[in-house]
Amino acid sequence: MGGSGYAGGEFLRLALGHPHLEVTQVTSERSAGLPVSMVHPNLRGRTNLKFRKAAELDAADIVVLALPHNSAAKRIAEFTEKGRIVVDLSADFRLKDPEVYRATYGEDHPAPDQLGDWVYGNPELHREDLRGATRIACAGCFATSVILALYPLLKLGVLLPKDIIATGLVGSSAAGASASEASHHPERAGSLRVYKPVGHRHTAEASQELPGNFPLHLTAISTPRVRGILTTAQAWLPDGYSERDIWSAYREVYAAEPFVRIVKAARGIHRYPDPMLLDGTNYCDIGFELDTETGRVVLMSAIDNLVKGTAGHAIQSLNIACGWEETAGLDFAGLHPA
Amino acid sequence: MGGSGYAGGEFLRLALGHPHLEVTQVTSERSAGLPVSMVHPNLRGRTNLKFRKAAELDAADIVVLALPHNSAAKRIAEFTEKGRIVVDLSADFRLKDPEVYRATYGEDHPAPDQLGDWVYGNPELHREDLRGATRIACAGCFATSVILALYPLLKLGVLLPKDIIATGLVGSSAAGASASEASHHPERAGSLRVYKPVGHRHTAEASQELPGNFPLHLTAISTPRVRGILTTAQAWLPDGYSERDIWSAYREVYAAEPFVRIVKAARGIHRYPDPMLLDGTNYCDIGFELDTETGRVVLMSAIDNLVKGTAGHAIQSLNIACGWEETAGLDFAGLHPA
Amino acid sequence: MGGSGYAGGEFLRLALGHPHLEVTQVTSERSAGLPVSMVHPNLRGRTNLKFRKAAELDAADIVVLALPHNSAAKRIAEFTEKGRIVVDLSADFRLKDPEVYRATYGEDHPAPDQLGDWVYGNPELHREDLRGATRIACAGCFATSVILALYPLLKLGVLLPKDIIATGLVGSSAAGASASEASHHPERAGSLRVYKPVGHRHTAEASQELPGNFPLHLTAISTPRVRGILTTAQAWLPDGYSERDIWSAYREVYAAEPFVRIVKAARGIHRYPDPMLLDGTNYCDIGFELDTETGRVVLMSAIDNLVKGTAGHAIQSLNIACGWEETAGLDFAGLHPA
Amino acid sequence: MGGSGYAGGEFLRLALGHPHLEVTQVTSERSAGLPVSMVHPNLRGRTNLKFRKAAELDAADIVVLALPHNSAAKRIAEFTEKGRIVVDLSADFRLKDPEVYRATYGEDHPAPDQLGDWVYGNPELHREDLRGATRIACAGCFATSVILALYPLLKLGVLLPKDIIATGLVGSSAAGASASEASHHPERAGSLRVYKPVGHRHTAEASQELPGNFPLHLTAISTPRVRGILTTAQAWLPDGYSERDIWSAYREVYAAEPFVRIVKAARGIHRYPDPMLLDGTNYCDIGFELDTETGRVVLMSAIDNLVKGTAGHAIQSLNIACGWEETAGLDFAGLHPA
Repeated sequence: MGGSGYAGGEFLRLALGHPHLEVTQVTSERSAGLPVSMVHPNLRGRTNLKFRKAAELDAADIVVLALPHNSAAKRIAEFTEKGRIVVDLSADFRLKDPEVYRATYGEDHPAPDQLGDWVYGNPELHREDLRGATRIACAGCFATSVILALYPLLKLGVLLPKDIIATGLVGSSAAGASASEASHHPERAGSLRVYKPVGHRHTAEASQELPGNFPLHLTAISTPRVRGILTTAQAWLPDGYSERDIWSAYREVYAAEPFVRIVKAARGIHRYPDPMLLDGTNYCDIGFELDTETGRVVLMSAIDNLVKGTAGHAIQSLNIACGWEETAGLDFAGLHPA
Repeated sequence: MGGSGYAGGEFLRLALGHPHLEVTQVTSERSAGLPVSMVHPNLRGRTNLKFRKAAELDAADIVVLALPHNSAAKRIAEFTEKGRIVVDLSADFRLKDPEVYRATYGEDHPAPDQLGDWVYGNPELHREDLRGATRIACAGCFATSVILALYPLLKLGVLLPKDIIATGLVGSSAAGASASEASHHPERAGSLRVYKPVGHRHTAEASQELPGNFPLHLTAISTPRVRGILTTAQAWLPDGYSERDIWSAYREVYAAEPFVRIVKAARGIHRYPDPMLLDGTNYCDIGFELDTETGRVVLMSAIDNLVKGTAGHAIQSLNIACGWEETAGLDFAGLHPA
Repeated sequence: MGGSGYAGGEFLRLALGHPHLEVTQVTSERSAGLPVSMVHPNLRGRTNLKFRKAAELDAADIVVLALPHNSAAKRIAEFTEKGRIVVDLSADFRLKDPEVYRATYGEDHPAPDQLGDWVYGNPELHREDLRGATRIACAGCFATSVILALYPLLKLGVLLPKDIIATGLVGSSAAGASASEASHHPERAGSLRVYKPVGHRHTAEASQELPGNFPLHLTAISTPRVRGILTTAQAWLPDGYSERDIWSAYREVYAAEPFVRIVKAARGIHRYPDPMLLDGTNYCDIGFELDTETGRVVLMSAIDNLVKGTAGHAIQSLNIACGWEETAGLDFAGLHPA
Repeated sequence: MGGSGYAGGEFLRLALGHPHLEVTQVTSERSAGLPVSMVHPNLRGRTNLKFRKAAELDAADIVVLALPHNSAAKRIAEFTEKGRIVVDLSADFRLKDPEVYRATYGEDHPAPDQLGDWVYGNPELHREDLRGATRIACAGCFATSVILALYPLLKLGVLLPKDIIATGLVGSSAAGASASEASHHPERAGSLRVYKPVGHRHTAEASQELPGNFPLHLTAISTPRVRGILTTAQAWLPDGYSERDIWSAYREVYAAEPFVRIVKAARGIHRYPDPMLLDGTNYCDIGFELDTETGRVVLMSAIDNLVKGTAGHAIQSLNIACGWEETAGLDFAGLHPA
């Protein structure tokens, strides 16, 4: 549903190459009747599907919602009728608490009684909940980069309970496929623009998912990249803790994760995470550096906002929900140089 | 008139720093009431002017039209009443022949009897005509890059009368300040897109201005740059001619030109023209290379489409028309690196 | 052999994901002892191989040479001993005629008697020759883009025997992995730089492979992209020919090709080939436009220089040589947006 | 001295256009004998000077040192003999305390007894000291962006004494004109790379200059831009303070500053500082946003690292030192779009 945007297009790319998924229908009100490959030209020769209107949707095993924020929740009954498994790429079902939803999105949730049915689609935190799940609310992109950088350290109590400042450098695809003044190439190509210094909505999501009750502060800056998020999170180690404790925490929690890599080399130009290397991949690369004099630790994470931040996360969650190999359809290694 | 677009904004930047010009009014229907510096943020602290509606325009010594194509000609009487000197940055008054105008723009010219009153605003070709001129039709950007690369060689008969192929690599600002799908950053940032393989409208303009009756063919390709045009023109030397003849022709015609530089070095990375070096400047850099085995000569020119291709050209033409120093207000050297 | 450069790295990426290839050894004199993933950070978690010195190479079924130009030919006996199938990504064995080699590369070929043993690694032209081949000289990247745009039209006699001008816009990865002044980011990021207006070495290669004896002229321009080549070839249709004849020729020759797509839409921003869409893929997208008034036809082709221009071509050729499915290991669809 | 690098080149550009400066000599050991415009191609037609060796330097009124770090201090006697006024663009004479110098740069200062003779070249903080000064140590680029964002608030006691986290997004020109793996275009063009998460040397400089004894922490990230720094500084307001207090502080301290602009609009895409608008200009744009729920304030500053961060700062300081109009030679408004 809503397959003409960037999130929908990326899901289609991954689903068309997935060994266990078959894409049978794609909806777009705006592009109904057009070939999917006219809107997503990378899919030329990969699919002959045409967009249809939502009203023409037949039942399916899995329904994926790639609709604008607040569209899915209002029509959720319509969608759950169509498919046994529903995956929502929007923010509608991520927050558990309707009060937090109202505070964050400025209106009442349209279907608050259903919030409990949904699993937050982050495999690293909710793998067990995802097995057999039929309602998956995919994690937000900036939230994912923040959560995966911080989760092991907060879970294992490695950080001081001080304010954590997370700064996300975000590519232009995060704002979607609709042209606007902010995304007009001459205005954006050379720009480094703080677009959300305070009040980013993903703060609620990240705070909900992260252990403990740390004060978490987000700043988002747009960059000239198209894809990708690089997040730095500034946090503090207690006295007596060292780099080893950070390594231990990441290793303990992420050792078996297929899509989390710890990237921290002593030398070379690729010694920390860089979204340049992740376009099209489902990896979240994580690194860190410690200022031993002050105890300040800079955590870093990089993802492709459309893959690990959206559609890849969704595929990974679906793989778990359906009992398939968790990496199915997500084998692209990424390019270098890129 | 029409000061909220990129051409108008660039004219404002140059005019505000010009020793003999004073900007007293700027119109924009869309932005009327707003400070000019809100639309052109580089002018913060440089002007306190606000946009007004065209209907509120007072008389002035000079009226500059930065309106969409085909707007100026339809209302030309209205504008010529307001100012003694009228400079038009659009294509409306560039072509001398109404038939060519119709063939090129697909409609009859709204004021064909006035076409003879306008001087084509290219100082290198029409300096004498520009002295004292009161109607200046500024040359088009791609046309300028083609004309300045070819003019000396065609004027002095240095080229074979074979087809000339000119390929222009153009930045995104050439398409103007309005957001569109083609200029949406995620679609444009990494794109190399042929947008006018054949049928470019500037062919008529360049053919009108260039001596002789050479068949001239244009192809335009959009690049990820914001400003700038790099044009290569593929032409042919007659037997017995050599690189010296090209040097001679350029030197003879351009020796005294303040804004044309011949750029051709034996080595180094900057041995040919490069628009990277010209952002904000009024230079047209020109270079060439000869294939001695075949007589093929590759002519190259680089400009900033908004300066030498539009607003700088206009200032230079005005300087001549008003008897001021030709380089007044056009002294920016350009940046390196950039 | 020589796996630390960009061509070698790309071959490794594709080979590591290939169903029938196993990478057992990688050499690099400079990086011997280092993990492959330190030099090619996209391969983190994909391989634990370390670079070894060439002298330490064990025998293998297939040896792939990704050495600098003129290195492979001088030591070819050493390499053919090591493996039954040898694939060379350099220019050393592409030209059939030692005289043309000397004229092009300025020195005698080190092993002229072996030139006849090699198949030019372009599956679209030499598929039958590639079956069972044990010596494959992979086609050059710019040459490939020129050849694939022109081949059907020249083969079927659709073009006038006039000069063909091909202009290639090339990304920075084509110059390799070694830092230089020309590739220094501040000098290159905003540059549009003609780097080979005349005398491009791939002219010989393209002329050898294209049917007929057309005069072919190449100009190469560097762009701010990292990967990709967009080529426009300016050619001429005889009287009485039309767009249909171009369509027919492309369809007749390319109908069954798995990696050639004809991209020509009546509208939309993706109506012609664009390398933006091809990063990481083995596609060559081909388009065209006809100027019906003059008979000028603009042919366009886009490839990823490191894939269809180098390593992907090599894999495709190997697939044919070994009797595997031709598309094995080459299934990445490319990204949009990118 | 050392005019072939980016800092030296930018100083030359500004000095050549300065009403009271005449450039008589430029040194470069590496490029001695070459025209200055071969290394700085934007200066074609602006100067016929050639580089000479340092040993050939004649006396001058003003000597400007654009040498690598730690070169100026070792040979300072040699330079002070040559000119009455010496301006150093390097870090050698910025720190007042030799102990801090040693802790920061890992070696003893070569001329510790002279440190007291130098004025820190930041006009906003040291205008009075600069009048008549003959030794000017220009402020560092990242330090300048941090200092100007924080100075008024720290001076007037508007911030809580909590840790301040400053994150700088830096263009590639900051690393200088020498090619390296890190600056190789294919490795840098798409990169967002944390290059100094902790331990940035400008911490010492900023801490020295800022009032109070606030713990200040810097993180530097490289971006795909060539010029420019965007800094966000995360700080905290005491209870009872509001946005008004920030406005007041900035206005009180910066009201008369010719090159500091407060950029904070309620709407529009240019409502905060953006280095895109500042290439080539001497402006420092400053903005902020307050999170009223937590008291967190995000301060932002943008500069061109080569102008307000280096050469423009130097010219502005010289203007003050010599009693000229402070804005002389610094009138470029910047481009939009850019």
